[in-house]
Amino acid sequence: MTPNPEIVAAATEAADIAGRVILPFFRRPLDVEGKSDESPVTAADRGAELAIREFLGKRFPDHGIWGEEFGADRADAEWVWLLDPIDGTRAFITGRPLFTTLISLLHRGRPVLGIIDQPATRERWLGVAGQPTTFTGPFGGTAGCRPCGRLAEAELSCTSPEIFTPADLPRFEKLRAACKRVTWGGDAYGYGLLALGAIDVVAESTLKPWDWAALGPVIQGAGGSLTDWQGRELTLDSPGDVIALGDKALLPEALRLLA
Amino acid sequence: MTPNPEIVAAATEAADIAGRVILPFFRRPLDVEGKSDESPVTAADRGAELAIREFLGKRFPDHGIWGEEFGADRADAEWVWLLDPIDGTRAFITGRPLFTTLISLLHRGRPVLGIIDQPATRERWLGVAGQPTTFTGPFGGTAGCRPCGRLAEAELSCTSPEIFTPADLPRFEKLRAACKRVTWGGDAYGYGLLALGAIDVVAESTLKPWDWAALGPVIQGAGGSLTDWQGRELTLDSPGDVIALGDKALLPEALRLLA
Repeated sequence: MTPNPEIVAAATEAADIAGRVILPFFRRPLDVEGKSDESPVTAADRGAELAIREFLGKRFPDHGIWGEEFGADRADAEWVWLLDPIDGTRAFITGRPLFTTLISLLHRGRPVLGIIDQPATRERWLGVAGQPTTFTGPFGGTAGCRPCGRLAEAELSCTSPEIFTPADLPRFEKLRAACKRVTWGGDAYGYGLLALGAIDVVAESTLKPWDWAALGPVIQGAGGSLTDWQGRELTLDSPGDVIALGDKALLPEALRLLA
Repeated sequence: MTPNPEIVAAATEAADIAGRVILPFFRRPLDVEGKSDESPVTAADRGAELAIREFLGKRFPDHGIWGEEFGADRADAEWVWLLDPIDGTRAFITGRPLFTTLISLLHRGRPVLGIIDQPATRERWLGVAGQPTTFTGPFGGTAGCRPCGRLAEAELSCTSPEIFTPADLPRFEKLRAACKRVTWGGDAYGYGLLALGAIDVVAESTLKPWDWAALGPVIQGAGGSLTDWQGRELTLDSPGDVIALGDKALLPEALRLLA
C-alpha cells in the first residue's frame, strides 16, 4: 500500500527535525570536564528520536513507533514507523559526514516508505512503494541503479569486516573474492550510493529492522533489490543478513556464493 | 624552512584549481557508449594534475613538480611540489565525498607545507611548517589533536585491511587489538580527522610520498606526530609504513606493537 502524500510530507519533515537536533553535536568534543554523562553521539541519538516520536505521535496518534533507543509503542498498529536517528555511530563519532538518519514506515509489517538522510551534506534519498526513488543533494548523483553484467565487474561495499558473525564471514569472503573490488565504510550511506548507480553490491549481516527497513523502498524504487542471503523478502523476524544489488540479474550468482 | 606567504597563497589557489577540474567528474556515470576511453576518475586525476602543474610551473619556474600521474620535473630542485590530485580513488569511484586532493611542498626533501582538500564538501586542511594548522569547512570541527591517555581509549582509523602487505598485516592487527575501536575507510581524510581531534591513531603501509607528504605539516601543526613504524621521520626513501598519532605520548606503546 502506497502511503498518502500527507504521510510522505510528514516523513520528510521528521528527517528535517532530526537533522536540526543532530548537527550541533557532530564533531563536538567530548565533555572532558564530565558535566554531562552522555557522549555527543548518545545525546544526538536520543534527542533526535524523542523529537521525531513527539512529532509523529501528534500527527498520527494511531500509528505505532519503534525506535532503536526508546523501543516500541503500539507495535501492533496497521502503520508503524521505524526510526534509527543515527545509523553509523562510528562514522559520527569519528567525524565522517557519512552517518545517516533512517526513517521508515511499515504497513502491516512491510516497509512502504524509506528515508536515508545525511544532515551535514544535505543529501536525502526518499523511497515510496510504487514510486521512483528521489535523491537530492549538492554533490550531484541521480537516483537509479546501474546495470552490471557479472560480479567480476561489480563494486562491492561493506561497512566493516567486523560486522559479520564468525559463521557469516567466510560466506561474505566468497562473495568478496568474486567481486571486482571492495570499499569499506559507509553504513546506510553505502546503500544510498547503490541507489545512485555508484556501487553494485552491498552485503552485510547482523542488521536490525531499523537498519534495513528504510533501505528497501529506496533501493527498489531505484530498480535494485534488497533481500536476505537466501533471496527472500526481509521481515521483522529476519536474522539481519542483507544483500542489496543494483542489478537483480546478479542475485542467483550472489546467493550461490553466500549459501 | 617556512614557505613565504606567496607560496602558501599559490598552494591554496592550486587546490581551488584542482577542485574545479575534479568536481564535474564526481558521481558522473561511466561512459558506457565508449566515446571516451578514460574513466571519470582517470580523467579527473589527470586533468587536475595537468592544471596544477601548469599553474605552479608558471608561478615558480625554478621549483620541481612531482605528481602521481605525470612523474617528476626538476626533482633535484631546492623546492619540489608533490601532487596527488585524487587520493582515495575508491572513494571517488563509489561516490563517497571523502576523496581528497593532496598538495605538498618539500624543501630539500622535507615537507614544509601540506594541503588536504575535499572539493565537494569544501573542507580544507592547511599545514605550514612552524605554524598552527588551519581547517575550514561547513560541518564544524577545529584544527587541533586531542589528548589520549592510552591505546585502549584510542579511536583507530585505516583505509582498508587490503592496504597492508602480508608481512605488515599481523603487526597492524596487534595495534588494532590494543585500540578501543577501528573505523575503516577514509584515506587522507582520516588523517585530517585526526588533526581535528576526532580520531587518535591512523596506521597504514604501502603509502607513496605523494600520499603522506601533505599529511605531516597538517598533523604536526595540529600537535600530533607522523612517523614510520619505527618512529623515524618519513623520507622519500621510506617504504611507506606510516603511523599518525594525535597524542605523541602513545608513540612508544604503538611502536612496540608494530615492531
